Amino acid sequence: MKIGLLGFGTVGSGVYEIVKSTSTCFFDDIEVKKILVKDEKDKVMDIITTDAEEILNDKEIDLVVEVIGGIHPAYEYIMKALKNKKSVVTANKAVVAAYLKEFTKTAYENGISFEYEASVCGGIPWIKSLEKVKRIDEVTEVYGIFNGTSNFILDNMTKEGYEFQEILKKAQEKGYAESDPSADIDGIDIMRKLLITSSLAFECEVPEKEIDVFGIRNIQKTDIEYFKNINCTVKLIAAGKKYEDKYCAVVEPVIFKNERIEAAVPQNFNIGTIYGKTIGELKFYGQGAGKLPTGNAIVQDIIDIIEVNGKLKERKFENKLTKDSSLISGKYYVRVKNEEFEKENSDIIEKKLENSGNLIYITKKIDCQTMRKTAEKYIKEGIFYARFED
Amino acid sequence: MKIGLLGFGTVGSGVYEIVKSTSTCFFDDIEVKKILVKDEKDKVMDIITTDAEEILNDKEIDLVVEVIGGIHPAYEYIMKALKNKKSVVTANKAVVAAYLKEFTKTAYENGISFEYEASVCGGIPWIKSLEKVKRIDEVTEVYGIFNGTSNFILDNMTKEGYEFQEILKKAQEKGYAESDPSADIDGIDIMRKLLITSSLAFECEVPEKEIDVFGIRNIQKTDIEYFKNINCTVKLIAAGKKYEDKYCAVVEPVIFKNERIEAAVPQNFNIGTIYGKTIGELKFYGQGAGKLPTGNAIVQDIIDIIEVNGKLKERKFENKLTKDSSLISGKYYVRVKNEEFEKENSDIIEKKLENSGNLIYITKKIDCQTMRKTAEKYIKEGIFYARFED
Repeated sequence: MKIGLLGFGTVGSGVYEIVKSTSTCFFDDIEVKKILVKDEKDKVMDIITTDAEEILNDKEIDLVVEVIGGIHPAYEYIMKALKNKKSVVTANKAVVAAYLKEFTKTAYENGISFEYEASVCGGIPWIKSLEKVKRIDEVTEVYGIFNGTSNFILDNMTKEGYEFQEILKKAQEKGYAESDPSADIDGIDIMRKLLITSSLAFECEVPEKEIDVFGIRNIQKTDIEYFKNINCTVKLIAAGKKYEDKYCAVVEPVIFKNERIEAAVPQNFNIGTIYGKTIGELKFYGQGAGKLPTGNAIVQDIIDIIEVNGKLKERKFENKLTKDSSLISGKYYVRVKNEEFEKENSDIIEKKLENSGNLIYITKKIDCQTMRKTAEKYIKEGIFYARFED
Repeated sequence: MKIGLLGFGTVGSGVYEIVKSTSTCFFDDIEVKKILVKDEKDKVMDIITTDAEEILNDKEIDLVVEVIGGIHPAYEYIMKALKNKKSVVTANKAVVAAYLKEFTKTAYENGISFEYEASVCGGIPWIKSLEKVKRIDEVTEVYGIFNGTSNFILDNMTKEGYEFQEILKKAQEKGYAESDPSADIDGIDIMRKLLITSSLAFECEVPEKEIDVFGIRNIQKTDIEYFKNINCTVKLIAAGKKYEDKYCAVVEPVIFKNERIEAAVPQNFNIGTIYGKTIGELKFYGQGAGKLPTGNAIVQDIIDIIEVNGKLKERKFENKLTKDSSLISGKYYVRVKNEEFEKENSDIIEKKLENSGNLIYITKKIDCQTMRKTAEKYIKEGIFYARFED
């Protein structure tokens, strides 16, 4: 099978390295024929081009790997490849989250495959494991740590005592965080992964606007110290639940007891949990990003496409589910500066804690959307909240 | 596809229940045609028989599920089914550990499949995940908690303060441990799972006698208290490593820092870790036993066989590896009664600890086989040891 690579950055070069250096029997068939780069100066091999059409219109290329990232022109490239009957494998969560149903349908109509294992949890076999569980079980719950950057920040604040800004700077120096870190620390990246995961798990369309998102931008050392004192650890969690014809999907910090597995997930690792009726609870842990783990996930998709040899899966997103935020609820820890908060929200406050100059509240059990809406007007002045795991 | 069930105990009835009650598209094809039981009194349905030949010689049956357990007659039934060109799926670790290579070869020669996902880690997709990793990477290390009974005992000793005999009795009452618990607490069950795992991971034959095994029969509350005081948790671990043409496989208690994921594995859950060159570290967690999780793993194997539709995998065990115990080594915690131990083993002892009447030693870094051999003569008088994770 001849492959075209759209993009030759970290992940693209990881794919190329794995295909070139691996000698198991699955690789007899795989050849990288052309690679798209942006700049003329990056044309360091004969097979490199700056013209996407050379790949998208090449009749010998059966499969296109899209790793340029972003929505445009990734969307246009993927659609053209699919319509030209080339299977597509991508690691691009932004474009998958935005066009999952359209890509899936177009691939099926053209008799080829669209795969995106690498778009969620990097090297962890997450998408394919979820689909495997669903061969037998209805999936009623998914959750996990889907973003390595935020986990790196929280883990180092917890273990080394850093303030948020200090460790964010270190993460940027190490290349774990972007110079504009908002996609990671505001929960946008993890929201996209949750959207993809929930759509597959519950077989429905999940509109982005139905996912309540609260990130870790406002967390402070004082919050971490409070959690440590009660033998807990905070993690940024994506969670989705389904019950009958209702569902809920939310991104928010969650406080785990230290004895829980999620509390032990270190550095920039990811973990994901799936619940099914007969299989019970399954967890999958590994590298959520990085050149070789993400490259590995892409190559696994390529091998899957070779293996199924045209026997296509039809993925559907046809369940009509309505959002019900009460499916995910709990008591919340809330830290605010403004004394107005207490007056305006006395109905949801269970108790007030003393903590050297900070106003800290524990709420009654409320649903995740109520908490998110309550926090809205205090976000700019630095409110932080996190849900206690039941 | 018509299937025959050999055995209708816990796991067999789990398989039957899942096949009967599941309605995903994969089940349109699956029908349980006949079920073998031992006693005439258990013939409660028309499809139940007490004559194995009725299943093994039935030309309509394409696939046989073996869940009777033990070596004989399971071995004979499996061989006859394979030679009659029926694919076989089994949960029976004892017979798989003893005859893995022969079953694999016979199945391949007869153009059908032999699958055994359920034989290691129950419902966790462990065998298939390992094989998936190996499509790309050489696997250099595998380890994990592969026995739910011993984990239940250790977890409850740690969290609830039980003595070993007390919690063993409770485990027996709950049905988590057999009336003769030796397979679980002496590490025999986990050794078989390690043998199967290492054979597949390293593509070699692993003779049972090359696996050093030390269980948890001799553990006491005093050991657990010592580990808790140093913020650690002990787990019974199966571990295999490969380096060039050497390998090592060992079953022994291992002491993990509390912040490690293994330390957080509760109750009778299992976890397994795989290292590959490009994928890095992957962990898989779930129910290691039980009617529905184990039944689920068997049904997943059945679906895989339907899906591959005769396109066979050839599994080989042809690497010639020699045992090298130095691949797995560390400092050990040792508790003995006999003062002779100190005199006879002064060369490996790093320090002696005071602990109310017990003789406790921390060894220098030694390999796992040296530790096992050193312990041999003190086993009957109650020696307990555990390796500190590096």
